Amino acid sequence: MRLHLNENTAGCSPAVMRALQALGRQDAGFYPDYDAARDAVARLFGVTADSVLLTNGLDEGILAAIGAAFRDRHGGVPETVGVAPAFDMYEILTTALGGKMVTVPLGPAFDLDMEAVARAVTGETRIVFLTNPHNPSGRFYPLEAFRDLAKRIAPVLLFADEAYADFCSATLIAPDTFARHPNLVVGRTFSKSYGLAGLRAGTVIGAPETLAPMRAVVPPYSLNAWAAAALPVAVADTAYRDWYCREARASRQLLADACARLDLPTWPSAANFVLVRVGAKVAEVVGALEARGVTVRNRSHEIGCDGCVRITAGIVDDTRRAIAALEEVVCAAR
Amino acid sequence: MRLHLNENTAGCSPAVMRALQALGRQDAGFYPDYDAARDAVARLFGVTADSVLLTNGLDEGILAAIGAAFRDRHGGVPETVGVAPAFDMYEILTTALGGKMVTVPLGPAFDLDMEAVARAVTGETRIVFLTNPHNPSGRFYPLEAFRDLAKRIAPVLLFADEAYADFCSATLIAPDTFARHPNLVVGRTFSKSYGLAGLRAGTVIGAPETLAPMRAVVPPYSLNAWAAAALPVAVADTAYRDWYCREARASRQLLADACARLDLPTWPSAANFVLVRVGAKVAEVVGALEARGVTVRNRSHEIGCDGCVRITAGIVDDTRRAIAALEEVVCAAR
Repeated sequence: MRLHLNENTAGCSPAVMRALQALGRQDAGFYPDYDAARDAVARLFGVTADSVLLTNGLDEGILAAIGAAFRDRHGGVPETVGVAPAFDMYEILTTALGGKMVTVPLGPAFDLDMEAVARAVTGETRIVFLTNPHNPSGRFYPLEAFRDLAKRIAPVLLFADEAYADFCSATLIAPDTFARHPNLVVGRTFSKSYGLAGLRAGTVIGAPETLAPMRAVVPPYSLNAWAAAALPVAVADTAYRDWYCREARASRQLLADACARLDLPTWPSAANFVLVRVGAKVAEVVGALEARGVTVRNRSHEIGCDGCVRITAGIVDDTRRAIAALEEVVCAAR
Repeated sequence: MRLHLNENTAGCSPAVMRALQALGRQDAGFYPDYDAARDAVARLFGVTADSVLLTNGLDEGILAAIGAAFRDRHGGVPETVGVAPAFDMYEILTTALGGKMVTVPLGPAFDLDMEAVARAVTGETRIVFLTNPHNPSGRFYPLEAFRDLAKRIAPVLLFADEAYADFCSATLIAPDTFARHPNLVVGRTFSKSYGLAGLRAGTVIGAPETLAPMRAVVPPYSLNAWAAAALPVAVADTAYRDWYCREARASRQLLADACARLDLPTWPSAANFVLVRVGAKVAEVVGALEARGVTVRNRSHEIGCDGCVRITAGIVDDTRRAIAALEEVVCAAR
């Protein structure tokens, strides 16, 4: 069981699979068209089509934002700002494109000090990256704090990564958000609740003029034809997405309850994963779970995550099996 | 008939389609693994696995090369050098990432003056982009001239784009190429002879240490699961690729012969397309072909391409229908 990358453990919706089965040799051979996919995503988020940049997974959205933001330099090394711990691609891609990432440590309960984030912004800062709900803790931060930060740091870009927002149903995306905050963009992925991780489909939503330089970085045929065919069907199948979100929410509660019984600290999660402090024997626990066929992610090397693993909260059946394995392993290790 | 983007007009091989039909919901839901695809590509080109960078179409390879080459700046605007006319993504992505492209015009028969290219390289130049066979003329240039240029401009990178090399069976990729020329990389695509344009699969081949900074720019799950599954099967089905290359070669001869009969100048092509000078009424001809269901590419706005269209040389049956339409349209326009 792959419970280390926050994937949808049920896969994509059966309706998506039927659409993919209908594709043929010509779909493989010809460059894809994105009109239907882009329009479906625009409708989903209630924005205009020119507020949507489709990307080959959200990673490409992060790459495009950094590439665009670093294009003009005035002698110095361009910077991005984020928190620690965080999703590692912000720093990897910042460095790959010649920049430096500055990180602000989160508090003991992964509290986010927006004041400290704002103070980390310098004349060289081009983008602030923040994930909400936070990864790897699952903590949800109030949306108002993001809007305030965007106002305060303008014209520096605030990239709000909402990869896990479907699991808490709260989002910065609203009809007036981007008109009021042209320096705010929101990243979303279809890898999680929609189960399209293998198909690679993400999007950046923002004001058209803010997206324009990012759009220039994204090659014209970035999503493949299977992703383009999957997206409208996936987005239309809200019943499947809602079912999966219910499963993930039930699973994270089951995980939290089991960990409480085992006396393992966890943090309240608004996402499809739970961070669990298994303690000093973390490597041993991860190995023993792996031996039982349950792969979890060791996050213990990151700030504030000593002795922690992150466990994906997927469908309830998988979670029950994972909990059974965790109970065995933790009890044996004591 | 789509004869404007040099796609494989037959689509991917039936064996690839069977492999794709076998994929299921879990393949859609989970992040893909690339070991089999990477190893297949390494074997195809006779290089080690660490000499292979798989990319989401060759466009992403171009993006990664520019992103990596522009990462360190010393005050000036970084430059790339190429020829005109050329594939437009070199300049689009150079500009998108904050650089400037300097172009050297080709001669009357699309002759490539390597001396002029070398002289265009300045202290700000990071990459020289050259396509062989050339796009949009189809002209093939001797490989020795590329190796000489690489030596002369080192350590500036020479990005040799061999997108159409399968149609002439000549390539710079050889066991000792990259050890002798660490500043040379070769771009290849599986969009053309293998018919995977819709699946997005390209590769950059080069010395491992030259590829390392480009590898950092490419996100970890850049090819989707369908492309990853297709690649090993496509590469193994050499019979299909060879059949398609024979069709394309026969088609380009048929196109050249038909144009000679119609008194329309063409240039000898080593690729899967033919550049045809239809003359001053080019827009009218393109429109009339479109009305007959044949889409070709108007290249008349580019240097040295006055009055020219580029027509894809796909399977012979398609080509015969395209020629019939061209004959009607050209005769009617006279």
